[in-house]
This record gives sequence, C-alpha cells and structure tokens, in this order.
Amino acid sequence: MHLGTVRVGPGVTRAAVREGDAWVLLNAPDVGDLIRVRDWRERVRGDLATGERVPVTAADLAAPVLRPAKIICCGLNYRDHIAEMGREPPEYPTLFAKFAETLTGPADDIEIAGSAQVDWEAELAVIVGHALYRADRETAAASILGYTVANDVSCRDWQHRTLQWFQGKTWEGSTPLGPAIVTADEIDPQRGLEIRCEVDGVTMQASHTSELVFDAATLLSYISQFMRLGPGDVVLTGTPGGVGSAADPPRWLRDGEFLTTTIDGIGSLTNIMRLRADTGSPAQLEQETET
Amino acid sequence: MHLGTVRVGPGVTRAAVREGDAWVLLNAPDVGDLIRVRDWRERVRGDLATGERVPVTAADLAAPVLRPAKIICCGLNYRDHIAEMGREPPEYPTLFAKFAETLTGPADDIEIAGSAQVDWEAELAVIVGHALYRADRETAAASILGYTVANDVSCRDWQHRTLQWFQGKTWEGSTPLGPAIVTADEIDPQRGLEIRCEVDGVTMQASHTSELVFDAATLLSYISQFMRLGPGDVVLTGTPGGVGSAADPPRWLRDGEFLTTTIDGIGSLTNIMRLRADTGSPAQLEQETET
Repeated sequence: MHLGTVRVGPGVTRAAVREGDAWVLLNAPDVGDLIRVRDWRERVRGDLATGERVPVTAADLAAPVLRPAKIICCGLNYRDHIAEMGREPPEYPTLFAKFAETLTGPADDIEIAGSAQVDWEAELAVIVGHALYRADRETAAASILGYTVANDVSCRDWQHRTLQWFQGKTWEGSTPLGPAIVTADEIDPQRGLEIRCEVDGVTMQASHTSELVFDAATLLSYISQFMRLGPGDVVLTGTPGGVGSAADPPRWLRDGEFLTTTIDGIGSLTNIMRLRADTGSPAQLEQETET
Repeated sequence: MHLGTVRVGPGVTRAAVREGDAWVLLNAPDVGDLIRVRDWRERVRGDLATGERVPVTAADLAAPVLRPAKIICCGLNYRDHIAEMGREPPEYPTLFAKFAETLTGPADDIEIAGSAQVDWEAELAVIVGHALYRADRETAAASILGYTVANDVSCRDWQHRTLQWFQGKTWEGSTPLGPAIVTADEIDPQRGLEIRCEVDGVTMQASHTSELVFDAATLLSYISQFMRLGPGDVVLTGTPGGVGSAADPPRWLRDGEFLTTTIDGIGSLTNIMRLRADTGSPAQLEQETET
C-alpha cells in the first residue's frame, strides 16, 4: 500500500491511498491521523470503493505525516561512508531531534534565508505504525508502518556554531518528506534499496539502504528503551557519503537549484532551493547576544 | 498570575489559577490549551468567580503544559559556571531538543530504569505565550507567557555514548516541570532569582538567574530565526555549576533520594528518584546492534 497526504484546498489536506494512476482520498486529514485507529486498514478498504479520486499527475502532495509528535534522526549510519572516512563502525547510534515544523512536501520549494552553507542529506525515513516502549528488535520491526524518502537539508554554518547539531537541523520547512509511505509488507530496505541525491541532475550521493549500520528495527528498539514511540512518529536513518560539506572545496546548495532525492521502490522528492544567505535580523541578533 | 495544571481524576486534568490558598479550576485541560485563545485572560477572570476550588495542599499537580509541541534546551549558559571552568562565554547558545513525553509533574516520582549515571540540572523554564518567528529581542520578550522551574534530569552514560546529547536527555517522565507558571508581568529573572538544587536536603547547585549568558528573550529571539515558536512551547535555559558529573568523584543520584529544585519567587519541585541501573533489555539490544 502507498499512503500519502494530498492538499485539497487552502490549508486543507486528506490522507490518500494510491490505486493505479490515482490517489483515492480517505476520511482523515493526513496519514498520521489515519493510522491512529486500530482498524485503519479496513477503513481504507471501505473508502477505496467510494472515495474521490485525484489523478497522480494533478495531486499536490504534502508530507505524508504532517504533525508527528516526534522526529528522531540518526547520524553516521552508512557503513560505506564510515569506511571511506577511515572510521570504525559506531557502537551506538548518534541521535538528535527535529520538530514537525521542519517538514515540507515532496515537491515544495525549500526556502531558507539566513544560512550560507545549505547542504543535502538523502535519507530513508521510517514511519512508526503503533506504540512501542522498551521493545526488542522483533517487536520494533512489527511496529513499522512503512518507509518513505526524506532529505535532512542542513545549515552547516548553524550546525557547527556549537557541538550540538540541532540548530542547523530544524529550520522551518527545510525537510522534504514523501512522496508516499510504502507499507512494510511491500518493501524491505534491509535487502538494499538504492538511495540517491542529485543536484541539478548531477548525482552527489548514491548508496544502498543495506549499508545501514543500525537498521530501522534496531533504531526503533534502541530509541524505545528511553522513550515511548507512537503512531506517525518519524525516524530518519542517516545519510550516505557525498554530502557537500565533505567535498573539497565544500559545495553548498545555490538559489534555484533542483534537489532530487530518490529511493528506488519508494519514490522521489523534487524540490527547488530558494536560498538567501542573509536576513538582516540574525546579524543584528548576534550583535545583541554578544554584548 | 500563577497558572498550573491540576489532576482531577484518572487521566483528567484542568488548567487552574492560584488564588490565595486555592487553585481555581479553569475551562481547559492544561495551561498550554488555555492560552491558545487570544482572550484567555478575560476567560480566566470569568472562571475565577465561578470555578471550583481545590485547596493548594490537596492539589495533585501535573506539569503546567502537558503536551508542548516543542521543548528546546540551552546548555552552557551560566556565567559563573563558565568562569569557574576557565572557559570563555560562548558566542552562540548550544541548543538541543526534548519531546513532551519527557515531562512529569512537580511532585511525581522520577522512574528511570537502565541508566547508572543519573544527574540533576536545575533550570529556569520559559513558557511561550504567543507565536513568534524571526522576532527581535523586544518582540520575543513580549511573547513570553511566564516562567517556571524544571530539572533537566540527565542520564550521563547515555548522553556521552555519542557526541549528541539527545539520548541522555529525553527519557520518559524524567523532566519535572512546575509547580506553576508565574506570568511575566509578575517576575523578571534577569534581575536575578536564586536557583537551587538539593539532594536529600544537601545543596548541590546555587546560583542566580541573572548569571544567564543568553537570557530568556535573547534565546527566544535566536531560536525564532530558524523555527516558529508557538503558545505553550517550552525553552529550558541551562543549568548552573554543581552537577554530579562535575564532582570528583562523580556523584550520581541514588534510588529513593529526594530531589528538590527551587527558584525563589516561582516555587519548588520535590521529586523522589526511583532508579534501577539495569533493565536487561538494553544490554541484549547492544549485543544485537554490535553483531
């Protein structure tokens, strides 16, 4: 099953299920809301017969989950990238957080004003299907609703102002998610799906999800040791080698560039960067905080 | 005005305003919900006359905001602590995130199973009153609803497993918040409120909120440059010197100890630690992730 969230009017969205060349609209504002009831699969089957259809080519997609209570991200998680940097595989996942305001749609422009070092990070996103706490790996695996594509677009200048990455990682509308959640019964990233990031058509990152040190189920189990996870929560699994900040010289995203993020078998994000290095206000603010 | 959230039945809470020796129950489940309407102050005045009263001594308080969309924390922010460690004042605030599940009530037991290095961090918490984005310091100051007390109880073993602190900072029910939000018209932490943390009656931390490098309004303005803040969002402003991990040898919290966190003019948190170093499952999990 491919689940998405379609914009149907100003500020109005509907969860939807893909059938052929159409999205069939469901009786919920987004996928996160849809899956909060236990019998959601039966409800989807009911809506399939009667629901309004929107051609895929005409659909304006939002992020499939619009207001996840939690977005947890893992860094340093691709074996090939770790090896190419001459490092040892990590003993524990490196985790940080984002908030829901960070998300944007799979074809939306990404507007960032105030950073001069905007970078890409193609990632496999895991969507939690039902609650888990202190779960072993098997229980965690069974709690996965499905997988989608994300780009953890990062403002490296802000990320490296301090030791904690958060302030470079949670810019308003900076993280495209989608286009659809492919349910876990249809796809297994552990077997290896190709993941790619292109900038204006030039491939910058290319790897396979089988290279993950901590796979989806292991990450969910690990996180659930200290924090309850719930339906619609999002876990980003980290990015492979080839980010702009690792290039020599560094290669930052430029205003107007096309960012394409693809995982084979799931789909593609196609976002245009709308970038301005300055806003006026941060510089003014920095002056204030320094006095 | 002192605003709190009172538990009135199993799983049922009500926002409340303090009047003398009583909490007057208001028509909202918590303070976060109460302040989402623009005319909330008038509504409170209306409820004051007719609302049910609960004696302060009988009230079972929850965290004043139960489900904040965002909790943003600042580290390394007390001038006296930075000086005693021989460091320079930071140019930028060090920020990280917590999720709402981390919060617990001002007199609740704090149960942590699976960490052997549980530490205290007394903090001034700022509650956002209305939305702000890319706000200057003055606008940010005007958006503050008020202030309350928090203890950013931290699992140092997990915090230092990787470079990102998140996994030591966001344990289920580990962060007491309250007892009440004192509105910004009644109190000004910049003028200096004494902040203390005691363990079984022994003072471990004692400083003044005037020692903050980045004060509440500066932090809100800074965060708002990259992320929209909204009503009920919580910003923790960092902790002064005297944490257990900085002691020689380190001094960790023990099962059954009383943790008392006080800011003069706001109130006290009084929590009993319920600690178990092992759970069985994390060790098993680590074995799995290492293979």
